[in-house]
Amino acid sequence: MSYVELDHGTGGLLSRQLVENVIAPAFGDRYLGAMEDSAVLSLPGTQIAMTTDSFVVDPLFFEGGDIGKLAVCGTVNDIAVSGAKPLYLTVGLILEEGLPVADLVRAMTSMAEAAREAGVYIVAGDTKVVHRGAADKIFINTAGVGWLAPDALSLTNRRIRAGDSVVITSSIGAHSIHLLSLREGLGYENRVTSDCAPLNHLISDIHDQFGERLHAARDLTRGGLGTALTELADDIGLGIDVDLDSVPIQSEVIMAADMLGVDPIYLANEGSCLLFCDPDVSKAVVTKLRELTYGGQAAEIGVVVDRRDKSVFARSVNGDRLIEPLVGAQLPRLC
Amino acid sequence: MSYVELDHGTGGLLSRQLVENVIAPAFGDRYLGAMEDSAVLSLPGTQIAMTTDSFVVDPLFFEGGDIGKLAVCGTVNDIAVSGAKPLYLTVGLILEEGLPVADLVRAMTSMAEAAREAGVYIVAGDTKVVHRGAADKIFINTAGVGWLAPDALSLTNRRIRAGDSVVITSSIGAHSIHLLSLREGLGYENRVTSDCAPLNHLISDIHDQFGERLHAARDLTRGGLGTALTELADDIGLGIDVDLDSVPIQSEVIMAADMLGVDPIYLANEGSCLLFCDPDVSKAVVTKLRELTYGGQAAEIGVVVDRRDKSVFARSVNGDRLIEPLVGAQLPRLC
Repeated sequence: MSYVELDHGTGGLLSRQLVENVIAPAFGDRYLGAMEDSAVLSLPGTQIAMTTDSFVVDPLFFEGGDIGKLAVCGTVNDIAVSGAKPLYLTVGLILEEGLPVADLVRAMTSMAEAAREAGVYIVAGDTKVVHRGAADKIFINTAGVGWLAPDALSLTNRRIRAGDSVVITSSIGAHSIHLLSLREGLGYENRVTSDCAPLNHLISDIHDQFGERLHAARDLTRGGLGTALTELADDIGLGIDVDLDSVPIQSEVIMAADMLGVDPIYLANEGSCLLFCDPDVSKAVVTKLRELTYGGQAAEIGVVVDRRDKSVFARSVNGDRLIEPLVGAQLPRLC
Repeated sequence: MSYVELDHGTGGLLSRQLVENVIAPAFGDRYLGAMEDSAVLSLPGTQIAMTTDSFVVDPLFFEGGDIGKLAVCGTVNDIAVSGAKPLYLTVGLILEEGLPVADLVRAMTSMAEAAREAGVYIVAGDTKVVHRGAADKIFINTAGVGWLAPDALSLTNRRIRAGDSVVITSSIGAHSIHLLSLREGLGYENRVTSDCAPLNHLISDIHDQFGERLHAARDLTRGGLGTALTELADDIGLGIDVDLDSVPIQSEVIMAADMLGVDPIYLANEGSCLLFCDPDVSKAVVTKLRELTYGGQAAEIGVVVDRRDKSVFARSVNGDRLIEPLVGAQLPRLC
């Protein structure tokens, strides 16, 4: 079996062989399914967080990740920012006829590695094959369930208040710049790699240590830091002041963004998130983050302010400015 | 807003407007989301069933259903056949640039209606837009979580034993024949309509009444009755004897299948399932099913037998035969 054929998606013997001989073995110890219609699972409690995300990235494979790693990390991070512990993922595959099976195995193996690092299991899957030209190679949907401890304060925008410190866990823009550079041959693809990472352990370490003084978390994916801040300000009905000069960013990302004429604060990230916490612990949060995998670039970058126009105001030695919501894309879709 | 544009998938203001002004309103009271990254939800217990399915049907709209209704019913039914009560669904949309927004609204409205009938909620969603030609109009993934009561015996193939009666809840082949006829203009599309239906209430009514005497359920989707029986026999390590003449089927389905040269037992269904139960209650199960919505055609069609070659043997006045697993498709992909 070298290429995916339409018959792999028909529910017959070939469908079953693709799952049993290719997909399930690639998932290895991360695969919990019993090949029945649903997986029956136990949870440690009765409060769950649930989310879904689809991944359509081009190219499928890049430095720092691939569509499989993205599909695990994206959903794990969406669950983790609600304060829940990610446990179970489902995987929905839409494959284009003619896809090399080796590409499928590579993406699934990468999903398994990311799932192992994050401590989550793949519990159910579905595979559809569409005619050549009716999809672009591989689309992956992951949905996830996480568990909220009964006494845990969930992380939610509703707990953000004026005076909260805004902490970022890692530098911004690298994922977008790497993929753009790879697609367009801009020359930055070897100097800037994707930041794709599962952030659940980092978030739970901070949550465990700082408890209720950690109020909310928000991952910075499509639309980047700028979109996250403007959406948050709108949701909480408060303003946010940002010190742009303290936002961590690789110098090559600044150069590439300059060259492309785009603003790095709107670039997509796959391994960075914002944390909102009591101001009296913000320095300790940053210190702790810097000890953690994926937190080495952490910095305090702003404060929530009691300003009812819900504006996001950025100060910088290069000039102050309002950060506005992006209407559409400033760049081709990346993730 | 008349057509879906790439900018609707970039995570900016237009993405948010599509969700807030088009998708969420179409879901109406079935929508539980708080627009954060994950939905935080309560369950009545700690045992869950979890599943996923992607839907790529062509055409999007047909008699008896559409891609939206299919996406809800398919996942609801996969959860229900495990004996769980479906509660929460996530929706992952992949939209092709240029899709009429009216088609999106129609499919989402249909999802909401099916969710209302099934008693489930849409709790999280994700929307991606890909370039024209990189997907076929709309792909929908639904993942679902259902609850298993602590004292409930889950329905599972492991509880099937030799002597069990095999009951089918509805007639077979209508979904496939309707879609094929619609696509190819065969003339049957007005006489045979899709059987797409949520079966969770039907299954739970039987489960409630017959308790542990109901052992397993299996919905008959891709690959149809033939694939379900051969896979089940293989899984449980026993044979199955089927009385083909007792399998309910519309005469127009037989005529259309004859014309197409295909075997109706492999045709896809979206509103029919198999139940495995103690033989002493099989007649009562059929009687009860016939009182229920979607159970009017129910019939006892076979028995599980202690035959270690795991064969499925079909008897009929037209001749006896072995039912073999289909290798690939006998027809173009339908669901």
